[in-house]
Amino acid sequence: MLFGALEAGGTKIVCAIGNENGEIFEQISIPTETPEITLTKIAAYFKKHPIEALGIGSFGPIDLDKTSPTYGFITTTPKLAWANCNLVEYFKKELCCPIGFDTDVNASALGEVTWGSAKGLNSSIYITVGTGIGVGVYQNGSLAHGMLHPEAGHILLAKHPEDSYKGKCPYHGTCLEGLASGPAIEDRWGQKAINLVSEMKVWQLEAYYLAQAIVNYILILSPKRIILGGGVMHQTQLFPLIRKQVKELLGGYIQTKELDDLDTYIVPAGLNDNQGIMGCLELARLSI
Amino acid sequence: MLFGALEAGGTKIVCAIGNENGEIFEQISIPTETPEITLTKIAAYFKKHPIEALGIGSFGPIDLDKTSPTYGFITTTPKLAWANCNLVEYFKKELCCPIGFDTDVNASALGEVTWGSAKGLNSSIYITVGTGIGVGVYQNGSLAHGMLHPEAGHILLAKHPEDSYKGKCPYHGTCLEGLASGPAIEDRWGQKAINLVSEMKVWQLEAYYLAQAIVNYILILSPKRIILGGGVMHQTQLFPLIRKQVKELLGGYIQTKELDDLDTYIVPAGLNDNQGIMGCLELARLSI
Ligand SMILES: Nc1ncnc2c1ncn2[C@@H]1O[C@H](COP(=O)(O)OP(=O)(O)O)[C@@H](O)[C@H]1O
Ligand SMILES: Nc1ncnc2c1ncn2[C@@H]1O[C@H](COP(=O)(O)OP(=O)(O)O)[C@@H](O)[C@H]1O
Ligand SMILES: [Zn+2]
Ligand SMILES: [Zn+2]
Repeated sequence: MLFGALEAGGTKIVCAIGNENGEIFEQISIPTETPEITLTKIAAYFKKHPIEALGIGSFGPIDLDKTSPTYGFITTTPKLAWANCNLVEYFKKELCCPIGFDTDVNASALGEVTWGSAKGLNSSIYITVGTGIGVGVYQNGSLAHGMLHPEAGHILLAKHPEDSYKGKCPYHGTCLEGLASGPAIEDRWGQKAINLVSEMKVWQLEAYYLAQAIVNYILILSPKRIILGGGVMHQTQLFPLIRKQVKELLGGYIQTKELDDLDTYIVPAGLNDNQGIMGCLELARLSI
Repeated sequence: MLFGALEAGGTKIVCAIGNENGEIFEQISIPTETPEITLTKIAAYFKKHPIEALGIGSFGPIDLDKTSPTYGFITTTPKLAWANCNLVEYFKKELCCPIGFDTDVNASALGEVTWGSAKGLNSSIYITVGTGIGVGVYQNGSLAHGMLHPEAGHILLAKHPEDSYKGKCPYHGTCLEGLASGPAIEDRWGQKAINLVSEMKVWQLEAYYLAQAIVNYILILSPKRIILGGGVMHQTQLFPLIRKQVKELLGGYIQTKELDDLDTYIVPAGLNDNQGIMGCLELARLSI
Protein backbone atom coordinates (compact mmCIF):
# COMPACT_ATOMS: atom_id res chain seq x y z
CA MET A 1 0.00 0.00 0.00
CA LEU A 2 1.26 3.47 -0.89
CA PHE A 3 1.12 6.19 1.77
CA GLY A 4 2.06 9.85 1.82
CA ALA A 5 4.10 11.29 4.69
CA LEU A 6 4.33 14.98 5.46
CA GLU A 7 6.66 16.30 8.13
CA ALA A 8 5.95 19.99 8.59
CA GLY A 9 8.61 21.96 10.42
CA GLY A 10 8.98 25.67 11.02
CA THR A 11 11.77 26.07 8.46
CA LYS A 12 11.32 23.16 6.07
CA ILE A 13 8.75 20.62 5.02
CA VAL A 14 9.54 17.06 4.00
CA CYS A 15 7.15 15.09 1.79
CA ALA A 16 7.67 11.40 1.15
CA ILE A 17 6.04 8.42 -0.49
CA GLY A 18 6.37 5.09 1.25
CA ASN A 19 4.56 2.02 2.44
CA GLU A 20 3.22 0.31 5.57
CA ASN A 21 6.66 -1.16 6.31
CA GLY A 22 8.26 2.23 6.73
CA GLU A 23 10.01 1.95 3.38
CA ILE A 24 10.47 5.33 1.72
CA PHE A 25 10.53 5.33 -2.08
CA GLU A 26 11.14 9.00 -2.65
CA GLN A 27 11.12 12.27 -0.79
CA ILE A 28 11.44 16.01 -1.32
CA SER A 29 12.15 18.90 1.00
CA ILE A 30 10.80 22.40 0.49
CA PRO A 31 11.12 25.57 2.55
CA THR A 32 8.24 26.63 4.81
CA GLU A 33 6.92 29.84 3.23
CA THR A 34 3.29 30.98 3.46
CA PRO A 35 0.50 28.38 3.44
CA GLU A 36 -0.69 29.69 0.04
CA ILE A 37 2.63 28.95 -1.61
CA THR A 38 3.72 25.91 0.37
CA LEU A 39 0.49 23.95 0.63
CA THR A 40 -0.07 24.23 -3.12
CA LYS A 41 3.37 22.74 -3.77
CA ILE A 42 2.77 19.91 -1.32
CA ALA A 43 -0.64 19.03 -2.75
CA ALA A 44 0.79 19.03 -6.27
CA TYR A 45 3.51 16.61 -5.16
CA PHE A 46 1.18 14.10 -3.53
CA LYS A 47 -1.32 14.25 -6.40
CA LYS A 48 1.31 12.64 -8.61
CA HIS A 49 1.17 9.46 -6.51
CA PRO A 50 -1.76 7.08 -5.92
CA ILE A 51 -1.56 7.24 -2.10
CA GLU A 52 -4.22 5.59 0.08
CA ALA A 53 -3.79 8.03 2.97
CA LEU A 54 -1.60 10.89 4.15
CA GLY A 55 0.07 11.15 7.56
CA ILE A 56 0.99 14.61 8.80
CA GLY A 57 3.38 15.38 11.65
CA SER A 58 3.24 19.11 12.15
CA PHE A 59 4.85 21.89 14.14
CA GLY A 60 2.36 23.48 16.49
CA PRO A 61 0.51 24.17 18.57
CA ILE A 62 -2.09 22.16 16.70
CA ASP A 63 -5.58 21.00 17.64
CA LEU A 64 -5.77 17.22 18.02
CA ASP A 65 -9.17 17.00 19.65
CA LYS A 66 -11.42 15.29 17.11
CA THR A 67 -14.53 16.73 18.78
CA SER A 68 -13.25 20.30 18.45
CA PRO A 69 -14.40 22.67 15.68
CA THR A 70 -10.75 23.51 15.04
CA TYR A 71 -9.52 19.89 14.84
CA GLY A 72 -6.73 19.64 12.31
CA PHE A 73 -5.73 23.29 12.59
CA ILE A 74 -2.42 24.85 13.39
CA THR A 75 -3.69 27.20 16.09
CA THR A 76 -1.73 29.98 17.84
CA THR A 77 1.74 29.66 16.33
CA PRO A 78 4.13 32.62 16.36
CA LYS A 79 4.56 31.89 12.62
CA LEU A 80 1.58 34.14 12.00
CA ALA A 81 0.92 33.19 8.37
CA TRP A 82 0.19 29.66 9.58
CA ALA A 83 -2.02 30.55 12.54
CA ASN A 84 -5.53 29.09 12.14
CA CYS A 85 -4.49 27.09 9.09
CA ASN A 86 -6.75 24.06 8.61
CA LEU A 87 -4.23 21.50 7.39
CA VAL A 88 -6.40 18.40 7.66
CA GLU A 89 -9.35 19.89 5.79
CA TYR A 90 -7.10 21.26 3.07
CA PHE A 91 -5.50 17.92 2.29
CA LYS A 92 -8.71 15.97 2.69
CA LYS A 93 -10.24 18.13 -0.05
CA GLU A 94 -7.21 18.18 -2.30
CA LEU A 95 -6.26 14.51 -2.02
CA CYS A 96 -9.64 12.88 -1.23
CA CYS A 97 -8.10 10.37 1.18
CA PRO A 98 -7.96 9.82 4.95
CA ILE A 99 -5.56 12.09 6.80
CA GLY A 100 -3.62 11.09 9.93
CA PHE A 101 -2.60 14.09 11.99
CA ASP A 102 -0.34 14.61 14.99
CA THR A 103 2.55 16.73 16.23
CA ASP A 104 6.00 16.41 14.67
CA VAL A 105 7.44 14.98 17.86
CA ASN A 106 4.59 12.51 18.26
CA ALA A 107 5.25 11.36 14.69
CA SER A 108 8.89 10.75 15.62
CA ALA A 109 7.83 8.91 18.76
CA LEU A 110 5.54 6.73 16.64
CA GLY A 111 8.31 6.04 14.14
CA GLU A 112 10.58 4.85 16.94
CA VAL A 113 7.79 2.77 18.47
CA THR A 114 6.95 1.13 15.16
CA TRP A 115 10.39 0.47 13.73
CA GLY A 116 13.08 1.99 15.95
CA SER A 117 14.49 1.98 19.45
CA ALA A 118 11.11 1.58 21.19
CA LYS A 119 9.84 -1.25 19.00
CA GLY A 120 7.69 -3.73 20.89
CA LEU A 121 7.20 -1.58 23.99
CA ASN A 122 3.74 -0.36 24.98
CA SER A 123 5.09 2.71 26.77
CA SER A 124 8.00 4.95 25.88
CA ILE A 125 8.84 8.59 25.34
CA TYR A 126 10.74 10.30 22.56
CA ILE A 127 12.58 13.53 23.33
CA THR A 128 13.85 15.75 20.55
CA VAL A 129 16.57 18.23 21.45
CA GLY A 130 17.00 20.60 18.54
CA THR A 131 15.78 24.11 17.77
CA GLY A 132 13.15 23.41 20.38
CA ILE A 133 12.72 20.60 22.86
CA GLY A 134 9.67 18.40 22.45
CA VAL A 135 8.47 15.16 23.96
CA GLY A 136 6.26 12.54 22.35
CA VAL A 137 4.53 10.26 24.82
CA TYR A 138 3.44 6.74 23.93
CA GLN A 139 1.41 5.07 26.66
CA ASN A 140 -0.84 2.05 26.98
CA GLY A 141 -0.18 1.44 23.30
CA SER A 142 -1.09 4.83 21.86
CA LEU A 143 0.15 8.39 21.58
CA ALA A 144 -0.96 10.52 24.52
CA HIS A 145 -3.17 13.53 23.88
CA GLY A 146 -4.81 15.30 26.79
CA MET A 147 -6.33 18.73 27.00
CA LEU A 148 -3.68 19.69 24.47
CA HIS A 149 -0.76 17.67 23.19
CA PRO A 150 1.82 17.58 25.95
CA GLU A 151 4.37 20.41 25.95
CA ALA A 152 6.85 18.69 28.18
CA GLY A 153 9.79 20.51 26.61
CA HIS A 154 8.81 23.53 28.69
CA ILE A 155 8.89 22.04 32.18
CA LEU A 156 10.41 24.07 34.99
CA LEU A 157 13.71 22.93 36.44
CA ALA A 158 16.15 23.80 39.18
CA LYS A 159 18.96 25.96 37.81
CA HIS A 160 22.47 24.65 38.19
CA PRO A 161 24.03 26.65 41.05
CA GLU A 162 26.82 27.89 38.78
CA ASP A 163 24.67 28.67 35.75
CA SER A 164 23.69 32.32 35.57
CA TYR A 165 22.21 32.15 32.06
CA LYS A 166 18.82 33.85 31.94
CA GLY A 167 17.24 31.34 29.58
CA LYS A 168 15.93 31.62 26.04
CA CYS A 169 12.25 30.72 26.29
CA PRO A 170 10.09 33.79 25.65
CA TYR A 171 7.37 32.34 27.91
CA HIS A 172 9.29 30.87 30.85
CA GLY A 173 12.91 31.97 30.55
CA THR A 174 14.60 29.03 32.21
CA CYS A 175 12.32 26.13 31.34
CA LEU A 176 14.03 23.05 29.83
CA GLU A 177 13.81 24.41 26.29
CA GLY A 178 15.01 27.80 27.51
CA LEU A 179 18.07 26.18 29.10
CA ALA A 180 19.00 23.27 26.88
CA SER A 181 17.78 23.67 23.27
CA GLY A 182 20.31 24.19 20.48
CA PRO A 183 19.66 27.96 20.38
CA ALA A 184 20.03 28.13 24.19
CA ILE A 185 23.44 26.46 23.96
CA GLU A 186 24.49 28.91 21.28
CA ASP A 187 23.19 31.90 23.22
CA ARG A 188 24.80 30.86 26.51
CA TRP A 189 28.23 30.03 25.15
CA GLY A 190 28.35 32.45 22.23
CA GLN A 191 28.96 29.76 19.62
CA LYS A 192 26.99 27.16 17.71
CA ALA A 193 26.76 23.82 19.53
CA ILE A 194 28.68 22.11 16.75
CA ASN A 195 31.71 24.33 17.48
CA LEU A 196 31.72 23.42 21.17
CA VAL A 197 32.24 19.71 20.77
CA SER A 198 35.42 19.56 22.83
CA GLU A 199 34.18 21.77 25.68
CA MET A 200 33.37 19.29 28.43
CA LYS A 201 31.59 21.85 30.61
CA VAL A 202 29.07 22.54 27.85
CA TRP A 203 27.97 18.92 27.72
CA GLN A 204 28.12 18.43 31.49
CA LEU A 205 25.66 21.27 31.93
CA GLU A 206 23.51 20.11 29.01
CA ALA A 207 23.37 16.63 30.56
CA TYR A 208 22.53 18.14 33.95
CA TYR A 209 19.36 19.73 32.61
CA LEU A 210 18.35 16.85 30.35
CA ALA A 211 18.86 14.40 33.23
CA GLN A 212 16.74 16.49 35.57
CA ALA A 213 13.94 16.61 33.01
CA ILE A 214 14.25 12.88 32.33
CA VAL A 215 13.96 12.13 36.05
CA ASN A 216 10.71 14.09 36.14
CA TYR A 217 9.42 12.29 33.04
CA ILE A 218 10.27 8.96 34.67
CA LEU A 219 8.49 9.89 37.89
CA ILE A 220 5.42 11.25 36.11
CA LEU A 221 5.09 8.97 33.10
CA SER A 222 7.01 5.85 34.02
CA PRO A 223 7.96 4.99 30.42
CA LYS A 224 9.60 1.67 29.63
CA ARG A 225 12.27 3.36 27.52
CA ILE A 226 13.47 6.89 26.77
CA ILE A 227 14.67 7.75 23.27
CA LEU A 228 16.62 10.92 22.57
CA GLY A 229 16.92 12.43 19.10
CA GLY A 230 17.30 15.79 17.35
CA GLY A 231 20.34 17.78 16.27
CA VAL A 232 21.91 18.32 19.68
CA MET A 233 21.80 14.59 20.47
CA HIS A 234 24.26 13.99 17.64
CA GLN A 235 26.71 14.80 20.45
CA THR A 236 26.67 11.21 21.59
CA GLN A 237 29.05 11.94 24.46
CA LEU A 238 25.89 13.25 26.14
CA PHE A 239 24.44 9.77 26.66
CA PRO A 240 26.81 8.49 29.37
CA LEU A 241 26.74 11.89 31.09
CA ILE A 242 22.94 11.89 31.13
CA ARG A 243 22.71 8.31 32.41
CA LYS A 244 25.11 9.03 35.25
CA GLN A 245 23.17 12.08 36.41
CA VAL A 246 19.79 10.37 36.07
CA LYS A 247 21.06 7.63 38.35
CA GLU A 248 22.28 10.12 40.92
CA LEU A 249 19.13 12.23 40.85
CA LEU A 250 16.80 9.25 41.23
CA GLY A 251 18.70 8.39 44.40
CA GLY A 252 17.74 4.72 44.26
CA TYR A 253 14.11 5.61 44.83
CA ILE A 254 12.65 3.58 41.99
CA GLN A 255 13.78 0.04 41.43
CA THR A 256 12.78 -1.70 38.24
CA LYS A 257 14.56 -3.97 35.84
CA GLU A 258 14.50 -1.19 33.23
CA LEU A 259 16.35 1.24 35.50
CA ASP A 260 18.92 -1.38 36.45
CA ASP A 261 20.33 -1.06 32.98
CA LEU A 262 20.36 2.58 31.97
CA ASP A 263 22.40 1.78 28.85
CA THR A 264 19.33 0.15 27.34
CA TYR A 265 16.86 2.48 29.06
CA ILE A 266 18.11 5.87 27.82
CA VAL A 267 19.05 5.40 24.19
CA PRO A 268 19.55 7.25 20.90
CA ALA A 269 16.92 7.25 18.19
CA GLY A 270 17.27 4.21 15.98
CA LEU A 271 16.13 5.45 12.59
CA ASN A 272 18.90 7.76 11.38
CA ASP A 273 16.87 10.95 11.65
CA ASN A 274 14.10 9.32 9.59
CA GLN A 275 11.94 8.70 12.67
CA GLY A 276 9.73 11.70 11.90
CA ILE A 277 8.94 10.95 8.28
CA MET A 278 8.59 7.21 8.95
CA GLY A 279 6.23 8.00 11.83
CA CYS A 280 4.11 9.98 9.35
CA LEU A 281 3.79 6.84 7.23
CA GLU A 282 2.45 5.04 10.29
CA LEU A 283 0.09 7.94 11.02
CA ALA A 284 -1.21 7.47 7.47
CA ARG A 285 -1.66 3.74 7.95
CA LEU A 286 -3.47 4.25 11.26
CA SER A 287 -5.90 6.70 9.65
CA ILE A 288 -7.50 4.15 7.35
CA MET B 1 -24.16 -6.02 43.50
CA LEU B 2 -22.09 -6.15 46.67
CA PHE B 3 -18.41 -5.25 46.51
CA GLY B 4 -15.60 -5.13 49.03
CA ALA B 5 -13.28 -2.12 49.22
CA LEU B 6 -9.91 -2.17 50.94
CA GLU B 7 -7.85 0.98 51.33
CA ALA B 8 -4.48 0.00 52.72
CA GLY B 9 -2.43 2.83 54.20
CA GLY B 10 0.82 2.78 56.11
CA THR B 11 -0.84 3.53 59.46
CA LYS B 12 -4.42 2.35 59.03
CA ILE B 13 -6.53 0.15 56.83
CA VAL B 14 -10.12 0.85 55.88
CA CYS B 15 -12.44 -1.97 54.82
CA ALA B 16 -15.89 -1.26 53.43
CA ILE B 17 -18.86 -2.96 51.87
CA GLY B 18 -20.67 -1.10 49.11
CA ASN B 19 -22.12 -1.33 45.65
CA GLU B 20 -21.50 -0.35 42.04
CA ASN B 21 -22.99 3.09 42.64
CA GLY B 22 -20.36 4.00 45.19
CA GLU B 23 -22.79 3.59 48.06
CA ILE B 24 -21.06 2.42 51.22
CA PHE B 25 -23.16 0.33 53.58
CA GLU B 26 -20.65 -0.17 56.35
CA GLN B 27 -16.95 0.28 57.01
CA ILE B 28 -14.30 -0.44 59.62
CA SER B 29 -10.84 0.92 60.22
CA ILE B 30 -8.00 -1.09 61.73
CA PRO B 31 -4.37 -0.23 62.44
CA THR B 32 -1.68 -1.47 60.05
CA GLU B 33 0.32 -4.00 62.08
CA THR B 34 2.11 -6.99 60.55
CA PRO B 35 0.58 -8.79 57.55
CA GLU B 36 0.01 -11.91 59.72
CA ILE B 37 -2.19 -10.02 62.17
CA THR B 38 -3.77 -7.48 59.86
CA LEU B 39 -4.55 -9.60 56.80
CA THR B 40 -6.30 -12.21 58.94
CA LYS B 41 -8.56 -9.54 60.42
CA ILE B 42 -9.36 -8.13 56.99
CA ALA B 43 -10.18 -11.52 55.49
CA ALA B 44 -12.42 -12.37 58.46
CA TYR B 45 -14.31 -9.11 57.92
CA PHE B 46 -14.95 -9.62 54.21
CA LYS B 47 -15.92 -13.28 54.67
CA LYS B 48 -18.98 -12.13 56.58
CA HIS B 49 -20.35 -10.48 53.42
CA PRO B 50 -21.33 -12.05 50.10
CA ILE B 51 -19.13 -9.76 47.97
CA GLU B 52 -18.73 -10.38 44.23
CA ALA B 53 -15.24 -8.84 44.06
CA LEU B 54 -12.73 -6.94 46.16
CA GLY B 55 -10.97 -3.72 45.13
CA ILE B 56 -7.68 -2.89 46.83
CA GLY B 57 -5.98 0.51 46.83
CA SER B 58 -2.65 -0.01 48.54
CA PHE B 59 0.35 1.92 49.78
CA GLY B 60 3.44 0.96 47.83
CA PRO B 61 5.53 0.52 45.92
CA ILE B 62 3.42 -2.27 44.49
CA ASP B 63 3.70 -4.36 41.34
CA LEU B 64 0.90 -3.61 38.88
CA ASP B 65 2.33 -5.41 35.87
CA LYS B 66 0.01 -8.33 35.20
CA THR B 67 2.72 -10.15 33.28
CA SER B 68 5.18 -9.96 36.18
CA PRO B 69 5.80 -12.88 38.57
CA THR B 70 5.36 -10.44 41.47
CA TYR B 71 2.08 -8.92 40.23
CA GLY B 72 -0.09 -8.03 43.20
CA PHE B 73 2.82 -7.72 45.63
CA ILE B 74 3.83 -4.88 47.85
CA THR B 75 7.48 -4.82 46.80
CA THR B 76 10.27 -2.75 48.37
CA THR B 77 8.47 -0.75 51.05
CA PRO B 78 10.38 0.67 54.02
CA LYS B 79 7.64 -0.96 56.15
CA LEU B 80 9.72 -4.11 56.12
CA ALA B 81 7.11 -6.54 57.47
CA TRP B 82 5.07 -5.80 54.34
CA ALA B 83 7.88 -6.07 51.79
CA ASN B 84 7.20 -8.86 49.27
CA CYS B 85 3.69 -9.38 50.60
CA ASN B 86 1.45 -10.94 47.95
CA LEU B 87 -1.81 -9.14 48.64
CA VAL B 88 -3.73 -10.18 45.54
CA GLU B 89 -2.95 -13.87 45.88
CA TYR B 90 -3.80 -13.86 49.57
CA PHE B 91 -7.26 -12.40 49.09
CA LYS B 92 -7.97 -14.40 45.94
CA LYS B 93 -7.40 -17.56 47.97
CA GLU B 94 -9.24 -16.42 51.08
CA LEU B 95 -12.23 -14.84 49.37
CA CYS B 96 -12.44 -16.82 46.10
CA CYS B 97 -13.44 -13.75 44.08
CA PRO B 98 -11.85 -11.41 41.52
CA ILE B 99 -9.47 -8.86 43.01
CA GLY B 100 -8.94 -5.36 41.59
CA PHE B 101 -5.59 -3.90 42.58
CA ASP B 102 -4.00 -0.49 42.29
CA THR B 103 -2.19 2.16 44.31
CA ASP B 104 -4.04 4.12 47.01
CA VAL B 105 -3.72 7.34 45.06
CA ASN B 106 -4.91 5.71 41.82
CA ALA B 107 -7.94 4.44 43.73
CA SER B 108 -8.66 8.01 44.86
CA ALA B 109 -8.21 9.24 41.30
CA LEU B 110 -10.66 6.60 40.12
CA GLY B 111 -13.17 7.55 42.80
CA GLU B 112 -13.07 11.17 41.67
CA VAL B 113 -13.32 10.15 38.01
CA THR B 114 -16.30 7.90 38.65
CA TRP B 115 -18.34 9.99 41.10
CA GLY B 116 -16.45 13.13 42.07
CA SER B 117 -14.81 16.25 40.68
CA ALA B 118 -13.48 14.57 37.52
CA LYS B 119 -16.71 12.82 36.56
CA GLY B 120 -17.22 12.58 32.82
CA LEU B 121 -13.67 13.56 31.84
CA ASN B 122 -11.43 11.11 30.01
CA SER B 123 -8.24 12.66 31.38
CA SER B 124 -7.51 14.11 34.81
CA ILE B 125 -5.05 13.84 37.63
CA TYR B 126 -5.60 13.49 41.36
CA ILE B 127 -2.93 14.84 43.71
CA THR B 128 -2.94 13.89 47.38
CA VAL B 129 -1.00 16.16 49.72
CA GLY B 130 -0.78 14.44 53.07
CA THR B 131 1.89 12.39 54.85
CA GLY B 132 3.31 11.87 51.39
CA ILE B 133 2.49 13.42 48.05
CA GLY B 134 1.12 11.13 45.38
CA VAL B 135 -0.41 11.58 41.96
CA GLY B 136 -2.98 9.36 40.26
CA VAL B 137 -3.10 9.76 36.50
CA TYR B 138 -6.21 9.00 34.48
CA GLN B 139 -5.64 9.20 30.75
CA ASN B 140 -7.44 8.13 27.60
CA GLY B 141 -10.10 6.69 29.90
CA SER B 142 -7.96 4.52 32.16
CA LEU B 143 -5.49 4.73 35.03
CA ALA B 144 -1.93 5.11 33.80
CA HIS B 145 0.61 2.42 34.65
CA GLY B 146 3.97 2.45 32.95
CA MET B 147 7.18 0.72 33.90
CA LEU B 148 5.99 1.23 37.46
CA HIS B 149 3.06 3.26 38.73
CA PRO B 150 4.01 6.91 38.42
CA GLU B 151 5.75 8.46 41.42
CA ALA B 152 5.08 12.03 40.47
CA GLY B 153 5.09 13.19 44.08
CA HIS B 154 8.88 13.02 43.95
CA ILE B 155 9.57 15.33 41.01
CA LEU B 156 12.46 17.76 41.26
CA LEU B 157 11.66 21.46 41.55
CA ALA B 158 13.36 24.82 41.70
CA LYS B 159 13.76 25.93 45.32
CA HIS B 160 12.20 29.23 46.29
CA PRO B 161 15.08 31.74 46.49
CA GLU B 162 14.24 32.50 50.14
CA ASP B 163 13.66 28.92 51.26
CA SER B 164 16.70 27.38 52.89
CA TYR B 165 14.93 24.23 54.14
CA LYS B 166 16.95 21.13 53.30
CA GLY B 167 13.95 18.96 52.46
CA LYS B 168 12.50 15.86 54.05
CA CYS B 169 12.66 13.18 51.35
CA PRO B 170 15.23 10.52 52.29
CA TYR B 171 15.86 9.86 48.56
CA HIS B 172 15.89 13.32 47.00
CA GLY B 173 15.86 15.90 49.80
CA THR B 174 14.06 18.71 48.08
CA CYS B 175 11.72 16.90 45.72
CA LEU B 176 8.05 17.98 45.85
CA GLU B 177 7.23 15.56 48.68
CA GLY B 178 10.38 16.61 50.52
CA LEU B 179 9.34 20.27 50.32
CA ALA B 180 5.56 20.29 50.56
CA SER B 181 4.14 17.20 52.32
CA GLY B 182 2.51 17.58 55.74
CA PRO B 183 5.63 16.33 57.56
CA ALA B 184 7.81 18.74 55.51
CA ILE B 185 5.61 21.65 56.58
CA GLU B 186 5.89 20.55 60.20
CA ASP B 187 9.65 20.07 59.97
CA ARG B 188 10.29 23.41 58.24
CA TRP B 189 8.15 25.56 60.52
CA GLY B 190 8.46 23.57 63.74
CA GLN B 191 4.72 23.06 64.17
CA LYS B 192 1.98 20.88 62.80
CA ALA B 193 0.34 22.31 59.67
CA ILE B 194 -2.96 22.59 61.46
CA ASN B 195 -1.41 25.04 63.94
CA LEU B 196 -0.10 27.29 61.17
CA VAL B 197 -3.44 28.15 59.62
CA SER B 198 -3.08 31.90 60.03
CA GLU B 199 0.53 32.12 58.84
CA MET B 200 0.21 33.46 55.29
CA LYS B 201 3.85 32.81 54.42
CA VAL B 202 3.43 29.08 55.11
CA TRP B 203 0.66 28.77 52.53
CA GLN B 204 2.30 31.11 50.04
CA LEU B 205 5.35 28.86 50.01
CA GLU B 206 3.26 25.69 49.96
CA ALA B 207 1.33 27.07 46.98
CA TYR B 208 4.58 28.03 45.27
CA TYR B 209 5.78 24.42 45.23
CA LEU B 210 2.43 22.86 44.45
CA ALA B 211 1.93 25.34 41.59
CA GLN B 212 5.35 24.55 40.15
CA ALA B 213 4.60 20.83 40.25
CA ILE B 214 1.15 21.36 38.73
CA VAL B 215 2.66 23.35 35.86
CA ASN B 216 4.96 20.43 35.11
CA TYR B 217 2.07 17.97 35.29
CA ILE B 218 0.10 20.17 32.89
CA LEU B 219 2.99 20.37 30.45
CA ILE B 220 3.75 16.66 30.60
CA LEU B 221 0.32 15.09 30.99
CA SER B 222 -2.09 17.72 29.75
CA PRO B 223 -4.96 16.62 32.00
CA LYS B 224 -8.42 18.10 31.51
CA ARG B 225 -8.78 18.76 35.25
CA ILE B 226 -6.59 18.68 38.36
CA ILE B 227 -8.08 17.52 41.65
CA LEU B 228 -6.30 18.13 44.95
CA GLY B 229 -7.05 16.15 48.09
CA GLY B 230 -5.38 14.87 51.26
CA GLY B 231 -5.01 16.35 54.73
CA VAL B 232 -3.00 19.45 53.80
CA MET B 233 -5.56 20.48 51.17
CA HIS B 234 -8.11 20.98 53.92
CA GLN B 235 -6.43 24.37 54.02
CA THR B 236 -8.70 25.64 51.27
CA GLN B 237 -7.01 29.04 51.23
CA LEU B 238 -4.37 27.21 49.19
CA PHE B 239 -6.58 26.95 46.12
CA PRO B 240 -6.64 30.62 45.04
CA LEU B 241 -2.92 30.91 45.86
CA ILE B 242 -2.10 27.88 43.73
CA ARG B 243 -4.25 29.04 40.80
CA LYS B 244 -2.59 32.45 40.78
CA GLN B 245 0.91 31.00 40.72
CA VAL B 246 0.06 28.39 38.09
CA LYS B 247 -1.17 31.18 35.84
CA GLU B 248 2.01 33.18 36.34
CA LEU B 249 4.34 30.22 35.83
CA LEU B 250 2.62 29.09 32.63
CA GLY B 251 3.29 32.56 31.25
CA GLY B 252 0.45 32.35 28.73
CA TYR B 253 2.23 29.57 26.87
CA ILE B 254 -0.67 27.17 26.68
CA GLN B 255 -4.07 28.41 25.65
CA THR B 256 -7.03 26.12 26.10
CA LYS B 257 -10.58 26.62 27.27
CA GLU B 258 -9.76 24.60 30.41
CA LEU B 259 -6.92 26.93 31.40
CA ASP B 260 -9.03 30.01 30.76
CA ASP B 261 -11.00 29.14 33.88
CA LEU B 262 -8.62 27.94 36.56
CA ASP B 263 -11.41 27.97 39.15
CA THR B 264 -12.93 24.93 37.47
CA TYR B 265 -9.58 23.49 36.35
CA ILE B 266 -7.78 23.19 39.71
CA VAL B 267 -10.37 21.99 42.20
CA PRO B 268 -10.80 20.21 45.55
CA ALA B 269 -11.74 16.55 45.75
CA GLY B 270 -15.49 16.14 45.60
CA LEU B 271 -16.12 13.08 47.76
CA ASN B 272 -15.51 14.22 51.33
CA ASP B 273 -12.36 12.18 51.84
CA ASN B 274 -14.22 9.06 50.64
CA GLN B 275 -12.59 9.17 47.19
CA GLY B 276 -10.13 6.41 48.13
CA ILE B 277 -12.57 3.88 49.50
CA MET B 278 -15.14 4.63 46.81
CA GLY B 279 -12.45 4.22 44.17
CA CYS B 280 -11.76 0.76 45.63
CA LEU B 281 -15.41 -0.14 44.98
CA GLU B 282 -14.91 0.84 41.36
CA LEU B 283 -11.67 -1.18 41.22
CA ALA B 284 -13.72 -4.15 42.42
CA ARG B 285 -16.39 -3.56 39.77
CA LEU B 286 -13.79 -3.24 37.03
CA SER B 287 -12.19 -6.56 38.05
CA ILE B 288 -15.21 -8.67 37.11
N1 LIG C 1 25.79 17.71 15.22
C1 LIG C 1 25.27 18.60 16.07
N2 LIG C 1 25.81 18.80 17.29
C2 LIG C 1 25.31 19.70 18.14
N3 LIG C 1 24.24 20.47 17.88
C3 LIG C 1 23.65 20.32 16.69
C4 LIG C 1 24.12 19.39 15.73
N4 LIG C 1 23.31 19.47 14.65
C5 LIG C 1 22.39 20.41 14.92
N5 LIG C 1 22.58 20.93 16.15
C6 LIG C 1 21.78 21.96 16.81
O1 LIG C 1 20.43 21.51 16.83
C7 LIG C 1 19.54 22.54 16.45
C8 LIG C 1 18.73 22.07 15.25
O2 LIG C 1 18.03 20.91 15.60
P1 LIG C 1 17.49 19.86 14.55
O3 LIG C 1 16.93 18.72 15.31
O4 LIG C 1 18.59 19.58 13.57
O5 LIG C 1 16.34 20.66 13.78
P2 LIG C 1 14.89 21.13 14.25
O6 LIG C 1 14.77 21.02 15.74
O7 LIG C 1 14.81 22.56 13.79
O8 LIG C 1 13.95 20.22 13.52
C9 LIG C 1 20.39 23.77 16.18
O9 LIG C 1 20.32 24.65 17.29
C10 LIG C 1 21.80 23.24 16.01
O10 LIG C 1 22.75 24.11 16.53
N1 LIG D 1 -6.76 20.16 58.37
C1 LIG D 1 -5.47 20.06 58.08
N2 LIG D 1 -4.75 21.16 57.74
C2 LIG D 1 -3.45 21.07 57.43
N3 LIG D 1 -2.76 19.92 57.42
C3 LIG D 1 -3.40 18.80 57.75
C4 LIG D 1 -4.78 18.78 58.08
N4 LIG D 1 -5.14 17.51 58.35
C5 LIG D 1 -4.05 16.76 58.20
N5 LIG D 1 -2.99 17.53 57.82
C6 LIG D 1 -1.63 17.08 57.55
O1 LIG D 1 -1.69 16.08 56.53
C7 LIG D 1 -0.87 14.96 56.86
C8 LIG D 1 -1.75 13.70 56.89
O2 LIG D 1 -2.36 13.55 55.65
P1 LIG D 1 -3.65 12.70 55.39
O3 LIG D 1 -4.04 12.89 53.98
O4 LIG D 1 -4.67 13.07 56.42
O5 LIG D 1 -3.21 11.20 55.67
P2 LIG D 1 -2.26 10.21 54.84
O6 LIG D 1 -1.51 10.99 53.82
O7 LIG D 1 -1.37 9.64 55.89
O8 LIG D 1 -3.21 9.22 54.26
C9 LIG D 1 -0.21 15.27 58.19
O9 LIG D 1 1.12 15.69 57.96
C10 LIG D 1 -1.04 16.40 58.77
O10 LIG D 1 -0.23 17.32 59.49
ZN1 LIG E 1 9.35 27.49 27.95
ZN1 LIG F 1 11.56 12.34 46.93
